[in-house]
Amino acid sequence: MKAAVAGASGYAGGELLRLLLGHPSIGIGTLTAGSSAGTRLGEHQPHLPTLADRIIEETTPEALSGHDVVFLALPHGQSADLAARLGQDTLIVDCGADFRLTSAADWTHFYGGEHAGAWPYGLPELPGRRERLRGARRIAVPGCYPTAATLALFPAFAAGLAEPDVVVVAASGTSGAGRSLKPNLLGSEVMGSVSAYGVGGVHRHTPEMEQNLTAVAGRPVRVSFTPTLAPMSRGILATCTAPATPGVTAAALREAYETAVKDEPFLRLLPEGVWPATAMTVGANTAALQVTLDERAGRIVAVAAIDNLTKGTAGGAIQSANLALGLPEELGLPLNGVAP
Amino acid sequence: MKAAVAGASGYAGGELLRLLLGHPSIGIGTLTAGSSAGTRLGEHQPHLPTLADRIIEETTPEALSGHDVVFLALPHGQSADLAARLGQDTLIVDCGADFRLTSAADWTHFYGGEHAGAWPYGLPELPGRRERLRGARRIAVPGCYPTAATLALFPAFAAGLAEPDVVVVAASGTSGAGRSLKPNLLGSEVMGSVSAYGVGGVHRHTPEMEQNLTAVAGRPVRVSFTPTLAPMSRGILATCTAPATPGVTAAALREAYETAVKDEPFLRLLPEGVWPATAMTVGANTAALQVTLDERAGRIVAVAAIDNLTKGTAGGAIQSANLALGLPEELGLPLNGVAP
Amino acid sequence: MKAAVAGASGYAGGELLRLLLGHPSIGIGTLTAGSSAGTRLGEHQPHLPTLADRIIEETTPEALSGHDVVFLALPHGQSADLAARLGQDTLIVDCGADFRLTSAADWTHFYGGEHAGAWPYGLPELPGRRERLRGARRIAVPGCYPTAATLALFPAFAAGLAEPDVVVVAASGTSGAGRSLKPNLLGSEVMGSVSAYGVGGVHRHTPEMEQNLTAVAGRPVRVSFTPTLAPMSRGILATCTAPATPGVTAAALREAYETAVKDEPFLRLLPEGVWPATAMTVGANTAALQVTLDERAGRIVAVAAIDNLTKGTAGGAIQSANLALGLPEELGLPLNGVAP
Amino acid sequence: MKAAVAGASGYAGGELLRLLLGHPSIGIGTLTAGSSAGTRLGEHQPHLPTLADRIIEETTPEALSGHDVVFLALPHGQSADLAARLGQDTLIVDCGADFRLTSAADWTHFYGGEHAGAWPYGLPELPGRRERLRGARRIAVPGCYPTAATLALFPAFAAGLAEPDVVVVAASGTSGAGRSLKPNLLGSEVMGSVSAYGVGGVHRHTPEMEQNLTAVAGRPVRVSFTPTLAPMSRGILATCTAPATPGVTAAALREAYETAVKDEPFLRLLPEGVWPATAMTVGANTAALQVTLDERAGRIVAVAAIDNLTKGTAGGAIQSANLALGLPEELGLPLNGVAP
Repeated sequence: MKAAVAGASGYAGGELLRLLLGHPSIGIGTLTAGSSAGTRLGEHQPHLPTLADRIIEETTPEALSGHDVVFLALPHGQSADLAARLGQDTLIVDCGADFRLTSAADWTHFYGGEHAGAWPYGLPELPGRRERLRGARRIAVPGCYPTAATLALFPAFAAGLAEPDVVVVAASGTSGAGRSLKPNLLGSEVMGSVSAYGVGGVHRHTPEMEQNLTAVAGRPVRVSFTPTLAPMSRGILATCTAPATPGVTAAALREAYETAVKDEPFLRLLPEGVWPATAMTVGANTAALQVTLDERAGRIVAVAAIDNLTKGTAGGAIQSANLALGLPEELGLPLNGVAP
Repeated sequence: MKAAVAGASGYAGGELLRLLLGHPSIGIGTLTAGSSAGTRLGEHQPHLPTLADRIIEETTPEALSGHDVVFLALPHGQSADLAARLGQDTLIVDCGADFRLTSAADWTHFYGGEHAGAWPYGLPELPGRRERLRGARRIAVPGCYPTAATLALFPAFAAGLAEPDVVVVAASGTSGAGRSLKPNLLGSEVMGSVSAYGVGGVHRHTPEMEQNLTAVAGRPVRVSFTPTLAPMSRGILATCTAPATPGVTAAALREAYETAVKDEPFLRLLPEGVWPATAMTVGANTAALQVTLDERAGRIVAVAAIDNLTKGTAGGAIQSANLALGLPEELGLPLNGVAP
Repeated sequence: MKAAVAGASGYAGGELLRLLLGHPSIGIGTLTAGSSAGTRLGEHQPHLPTLADRIIEETTPEALSGHDVVFLALPHGQSADLAARLGQDTLIVDCGADFRLTSAADWTHFYGGEHAGAWPYGLPELPGRRERLRGARRIAVPGCYPTAATLALFPAFAAGLAEPDVVVVAASGTSGAGRSLKPNLLGSEVMGSVSAYGVGGVHRHTPEMEQNLTAVAGRPVRVSFTPTLAPMSRGILATCTAPATPGVTAAALREAYETAVKDEPFLRLLPEGVWPATAMTVGANTAALQVTLDERAGRIVAVAAIDNLTKGTAGGAIQSANLALGLPEELGLPLNGVAP
Repeated sequence: MKAAVAGASGYAGGELLRLLLGHPSIGIGTLTAGSSAGTRLGEHQPHLPTLADRIIEETTPEALSGHDVVFLALPHGQSADLAARLGQDTLIVDCGADFRLTSAADWTHFYGGEHAGAWPYGLPELPGRRERLRGARRIAVPGCYPTAATLALFPAFAAGLAEPDVVVVAASGTSGAGRSLKPNLLGSEVMGSVSAYGVGGVHRHTPEMEQNLTAVAGRPVRVSFTPTLAPMSRGILATCTAPATPGVTAAALREAYETAVKDEPFLRLLPEGVWPATAMTVGANTAALQVTLDERAGRIVAVAAIDNLTKGTAGGAIQSANLALGLPEELGLPLNGVAP
């Protein structure tokens, strides 16, 4: 099988290529981009020498056609048109936000403009979603923060142990912002500093977290989400808390998480007392999880660490693509990370 | 006036010395430490060349006596004895935890052993505390996390705008852990990684936050506190949230914070829409604050950035010492930081 | 006395302001910039709250006139015109390169275009230069790399102990590149990576090092210079080596360095066996030096650590300005750094 | 085939395991260590979840016997005894220094004590060495710095273009120092700082560089080597310079390097004008190389970037083991890195 990657010069595109290079059943076909069209991939992804001399084409339906799967790692708003022109038989895996939200109202509130619809949501670990991804021809890859926060909390909600007043505070590495030339992303600004941004319910990943947890809980879940930027290139650490349903015990909580991760290849509940660090997951498709019950405060605290570019974007995309293409879900996806 | 510094070879001790070197009214007397006694200060604080040849003495009451103020930057448990032997006339400013908590039950629960008592709490910004510090001869310097979280949230509680179900998630630089030779503090482990620790209501700074906010709110405040370690040497970013009291408006919230910071030399409410970064405060005694109302989630979100070694420890200690010694509160304390 | 700062929104401008805020004899007058004109300083220098509400003016001779000293922290090529229009009585301290080189041929080779001339060179530690700076009305502040490399090696050349085949390899923090929006300066690219650039004798600071060392040696000195970018915001570590003149002993070398630094307020020869780290000098105007004789390889190896923004730019500028204005050379310049 | 790893709890051991997990022909047998014996591997290598529950045994000949290959990642001095007791048929790949140097005098000068001998040197790229590694049963893995410096300069010496007065200045990530609990390796000390150490011809990797380059040059090569510590976990950037032999042209130099890398799977000469960054090689067994002729200074400047744990240690070890075991040299070794 053959994959095209649109947005090959960016960070998400680079990670898709890195993973696809190790994928035994999916080869790398056309690479496209916007302003980088016509240049060598090596100029943008110097860590991928085996693809250095590939020429990047312009992102057009023609360039992307003829592949079994097309991965889109593009700015918001470009997916719908491309998808319409690529036909229903091509698997399209969109790493952007265009088709993540089911609520048109949420879409308009957080993104502005008109809702384009929703595609099958590429988080196989979310109860009931894996089946919908098998054979799918359109997949919306979750946002990186929603991936981390949802994986941290869904076992508690699935087991009916948590109340829907959720607080998520997450630290992300700078690659989450892409290769954007913004002053606040310069190394001089980022190193030695943690900063908050998008505070107060305005970050676009908020409704996506609510959508996921609401689906699991079976009742509306509200999320107060604060993202922060940390001085590292990769990784998300999401600290997630919700009031414990009265009567919940630490043992019941642990059991709920053990049950939730039992058959999941990429979820890893750490031994009791060990807390996630993003360094556990660099370059891996693994989510490292831990949970505890704060009896004083009456709250469940769950923490997830992922690599925002791997499980949070490109790895998650390939995991769902594997399902859609009838391949083993784990194929080509590293479980072990690169550390220290 | 002359100051002795006990614990001069550690990070808090080094910051005390750095600040005292710029203090116009307090000179530096005896320096003491434990296992570093007998060595040159330059071996431990190579960034302080003007003190490099000072010899560190052993921490004893004799070595520390004869000073107007003694700063203790020692491991927990050593302050009570030293204080008893230094006499009631010497100002003792304890950067450790021994005398921070008023509740003996909390002390025993979180620290173990017997409660030694409480000294005037060195956070002048906390309503009603500044007066108690003037002329004091014993001061308990707040913990670094409680300093950040309390400064972030006290205006909301003081104005009756917040409900007492608080969630605090804070990222700290590694210097907060001192110069301890622990594997998880090695550069190789820390760089490129954010990690959680002390999760679930077990961190010792939790009851101190509750004590402060309860005093301001006039009713019991519970805090769910999660500390995280970030890949930087200095700085704390505390993201703090509490349910908004019904009817609270964004305007009322802003006004409460403007009122709270108005006469405070070290509190800086950022312009609306600008969120704190720890880089704003490196080496400064300033706390950078911002607040907003998340109307969707019904929560106030307040963020504070401080330098854990300056406002969070040594700067806070000198600020309170200034008050106790009858000096201007701001004397010798930098308002501006070192960036980028 | 009053200073204007042109280029106040950049990193060098910010450091000039930070230091001037602590200067007892020079107040801060007009602040100017290019594209940032009309904005609040706080938008660009959030670490300087005491100047946050100052409005930046456009860089024009009119805006800069009426000050005792004008610091220029501008892109190359703008200084000559401004200087011509500010008059001979105003002290102009140029942090840019326009007037550093005395050789027109070198200027044209490395910078292109026509040589504008040379101003008194603001490195008072260089033998014979301090006197030329007293009362000067034009000063060319050295480049950051030449400052580090010259301070590392001039004692050896001044004492006739080194041969003129010099190799300098230096690591710089990213602030040396200014606040430029270039992809290679993004945090995601910089963190976790050391990279070489400007290799092979093409970096513009090369002829400046040669000019300085040639002047001290009294014969032509050639420098092979390689700059590298390190994952930190501030600091330069310059490793400098030259063949030892036959017969040189370690004792003679040590003595030459001790003599060279003896009366220099900002040069600090570390105790034998201790090697410089940039963390020793963050925010300080100090250069930390060490030297040794590699008898196997027949080479002197000298290492200097400075803060590129302080001693390497803004601190060096103020040091020379102090001399020019008849003030004590050390006035307002920190000897101690901020660490860890 | 099956491999044992001695020293499995350290950084080199962890990298060996990470790579072996992806090796199609070598399985992972016994894991041993010293003080960590009896613990789970997951406690030490949390990034390797698929091996988390493996129990580490004590490092004894018995535990290590019965494997096709034994990788030793141990402190110096333990290899000789273990090798003697494991028999001549087992392939032993020593990541330590014990058998790297052929000169007993150099050994005693730099390491002290008696020389244990020399094993085939595991740098297949060094002219003439690949053949000696095929079928070998003892391999000395090169030091990380010598790997980088040798790869940077051997093409110039092999082609007779360089004179033997070499200067190497290299920046290393902190993992090169292992998981040692030393104060200068704490995150608080390392972040934001570049420092020099082992200056003046005393670093133990110096004679190893000389040995390699002397062998290639066919005449004695002297190396002035200065290592520096950079604020990153992984990576070495080695800047290497030697006088150009009179008459050398840039074209001849380029051609020599193109020839040298032509059939080498892990050497990558970057396009002209592109200089190595360690981020290009994180987690990969690739060395990124570039070279230029500085005609002003009359010097060749060559720069190599490697991952100190991969090509510099564990990857290099497996590359040589592949040769010794009759496997394809590239087997199981990543060419592409993890970035950003």
